[in-house]
This record gives sequence, structure tokens and C-alpha cells, in this order.
Amino acid sequence: MEQLLILKLGGGVLDDPASLAEALDYFSERTGRKLLVHGGGRKASALSKQMGLAPKLIDGRRITDAATLEVVVMVYAGLLNKQVVADLQARACNAIGLSGADGDLIRAHKRPVREIDYGFAGDIEQVAGESYRRLIEAGFTPVCCPITHNGQGQLLNTNADTIAADLAIALLPYYQVELEYYFDRPGVLLDSTDDNSLLVELHTERYAELSASGAIHTGMLPKLDNAFRAQAAGVTEVRIGNKKSLRTGTATRLH
Amino acid sequence: MEQLLILKLGGGVLDDPASLAEALDYFSERTGRKLLVHGGGRKASALSKQMGLAPKLIDGRRITDAATLEVVVMVYAGLLNKQVVADLQARACNAIGLSGADGDLIRAHKRPVREIDYGFAGDIEQVAGESYRRLIEAGFTPVCCPITHNGQGQLLNTNADTIAADLAIALLPYYQVELEYYFDRPGVLLDSTDDNSLLVELHTERYAELSASGAIHTGMLPKLDNAFRAQAAGVTEVRIGNKKSLRTGTATRLH
Repeated sequence: MEQLLILKLGGGVLDDPASLAEALDYFSERTGRKLLVHGGGRKASALSKQMGLAPKLIDGRRITDAATLEVVVMVYAGLLNKQVVADLQARACNAIGLSGADGDLIRAHKRPVREIDYGFAGDIEQVAGESYRRLIEAGFTPVCCPITHNGQGQLLNTNADTIAADLAIALLPYYQVELEYYFDRPGVLLDSTDDNSLLVELHTERYAELSASGAIHTGMLPKLDNAFRAQAAGVTEVRIGNKKSLRTGTATRLH
Repeated sequence: MEQLLILKLGGGVLDDPASLAEALDYFSERTGRKLLVHGGGRKASALSKQMGLAPKLIDGRRITDAATLEVVVMVYAGLLNKQVVADLQARACNAIGLSGADGDLIRAHKRPVREIDYGFAGDIEQVAGESYRRLIEAGFTPVCCPITHNGQGQLLNTNADTIAADLAIALLPYYQVELEYYFDRPGVLLDSTDDNSLLVELHTERYAELSASGAIHTGMLPKLDNAFRAQAAGVTEVRIGNKKSLRTGTATRLH
């Protein structure tokens, strides 16, 4: 079975041009079949502010109302996705930018309203692994933004870490999949202020202990939950780190 | 040789939800291989205004400065392109949204500065007909927005009528191509205020006379120049009209 690298690029990396250039160097230098998933970053909030939209937050979580959805579609699927694609093309990587609406690649439904109405947040229903395979085998490198659709004309905003894990799982029938979460830290840290507290390996039981004790920064939990889910489903290698740690093999490796 | 329909959707159609829905009904009901090219519409100007950007015009022509380029990428490649794709998916058409950067499909260069510096306006250098063919034969219906790139990481703003004609020409080695310019009028009118002045046929000599005498509205000239260029290159059928005239066969047909 052919290998496939799926690299998830964190929002923080997208916010800084020098970090983004480094990340795209790293990705474009990787040989073989590959796919990039990128997050959002701060640009959408900056644009909302410039447009005079007030951010809607409930319990600290962003609510995607209709105006915010327009902004994230413009920024994630438009500005960021096309700039990343153009930057990869300049590095001789045959990138093709895709939302989940394109080719019906990621079908989602609007998150049901319980305590909170998250607005146009999309929970993934179905990933068209076979369509990604067709694009990859036709010579393209998919660059996926965190926008999905419901199949009835509604675009939705979906978490990029979740997309990366779901894509990795959906492509398991076709490839031996490696998944890397590339962000601005060397990996999972026991002390988020100290790069020396890096965990080079992390297995499920240890993760359960560390998250129960609060030793792992809460911001890392959704990323790690997704990463462990992909690993449990059969993704060969799951690594979390930055350019340096991923290059030198010191990034956190999941077991 | 297989047939391919290329439909160019005018900006005015994109501005009105009911007209857009009609146009997408028309396009999705057409059977066989097909490709959509869409223009911009007024949304980019509205967003620029909302962001507090002053439109830059020289001799009535819009100049794409860096801030305007960001806006058109967000609106054309983001908002409009993904909404059209989601709307086509809802109509069981397997649309895939593409800029010219995606898959290196349309390479352009920044228009040289002569009397006017148009900023980030892109003149087309090369269309990757074979890559479009691969996407179409893989079962996708390309939906192309008027954003291109220069191969060195620079996105560019390119006229959608020109893209439609250049795409039609680039796909001639693979398909028998039909090109339709779909807009808000029944076709080429001798009197732009009177739909009864519709020309059902228009050949090159007549067009030369009518444009020399000023009988054809100046706004139509770039569209018609592109349409005649495609026809001269070997595109089987070139038609210009709206939903009704294209359906009933009374749209202007070029000879």
C-alpha cells in the first residue's frame, strides 16, 4: 500500500508569514503522496472587526452566526486557502485547494442546538475518501480548509483538527496514512511554558492520566483527542510538533 | 470526441439570488461533461466599502491594489465560488471550485505598466487543459473563479470572460467545446434598452460594422471579442443569452 502524509497546519502558523513559509518548505520537501489541512488563525477575527461585526461568544466559545460564516468562508476557503496553494505551487508542489463542498468531499450537519446554539458549526457526517484518492492519484496535492457543507447548499464551519483526523481515517482503505499535527510548539508539553517538558512519546493510558490531572493544557485536549482517535483507527504514525521537532524526530509520537 | 459545455455566468446573475438559482438550475440540468466559469459581481465592492477601502479607479477602470486583491480573492475564490459549489452539489452536480492557482490551472503575469498601473491584474499566459481534462474525467464539474496566479506565489485578478474563452480554447484538443455566455439579457441587442432588438445570429463582418458604428453597447465589446476569439479558434458553438433565450434557442449565436 502506498504511503500518504496528512499534515495539519495550525492557525498560529498561518498568522505569521515567516512561520508559514517554513511550514510550507517542510511540507513541499516531503516526498510522495500528501495532503494538507489548514486551520483558520486570527485573520477572520481581524476581518470581522474591520467589518464592524461584534464577535459572538458563549462561555468563551465562538458562535458562527450568518455574518461570521460569510467571513470564515471568505478567509478560510478564499484568502488563506488560495494563498497557501499559490505558495505551494511556487515550491513545485501541485496543490489544489478544497473545501468540503468541493466534490462533496466532506458532508456535515449543523450542530444540534442543546444548551448552546453554535450557529453554522458543522459536525462531520461523511468523508468521500474515494474522491480524495482520485484527486491524489490524478497528481494533485489536496489543501483542505475547515469549511464543509450539508449537501443542501449550506456551508458550515468545521474544526480543522477534526477534519485532519477524519480524513486520515477515511483514507485508510487506500493508503498507509501518517498524520502530523504541525503547530508552533515542539510537541505535547507537561508545562506549556517550558519547551524542555516535551513528551517524546505519549500513549493512551498516560494521556488519560495527564488529562484527568490537568497536566496537559486544555487547548491541547481537542487536538489530542482527534490524534488518538486517528491512531486507534489504524493511522500508522501520529506525530505532533513544529518544524524542528518533526524534522529531528523529537516531536511527540502517539502510541 | 466527447462534448463539453463551458458556461460563463455573468456578475449580474451572481448579485441576485433568484437569478443565480435559475442559472444553476439551467446549468445542473444540462447533461454531459461541463464546466462553469463565474465572474465577480458587486459583492467585492460592497465588502471593500464595508472595510473602509476607497475604490481606486483610473479612467473608469478599477485598479487592483494589494488590499483590493485580498478582497477579490476572498469574495470570488471564497464566498461566491464555495456558495455556487454548495448550491450545485444540492442539485446533484459534482462541482469542484477552482482558482487558477489550484493545480496550476491558469498561469498569468501581472499586467505590464504602460499608461496605467492596473496593479494585480493578471493576463493569462497558459491554461493547463490536460489538468482540467483529468478533473473532468475523474467525475468532477469544475467551477472556475476569476483568480489566477503567476507561479511564484502571487495571486492575480483576471477577467472572467477572457478565462472562459481561454479555457474553451485550451480544451479543444480533448473535447468538442460549446461555449455559452449566460447573463441577464436575451443576447446581443442593437438597442440595449429594447429586448426586441435582439440579434439571433451575429457573424464577424457584421460585428465589425456594428462595433465600428457604435451600435453595440461598449460593455458588450470585451465579451464579444472573447466570444469571437473562441469561435475563430474552433469552438463549435458560441451563444450569448439568458435562461429563456438559451433554452429556446433564440440566444445570439456567433458565426
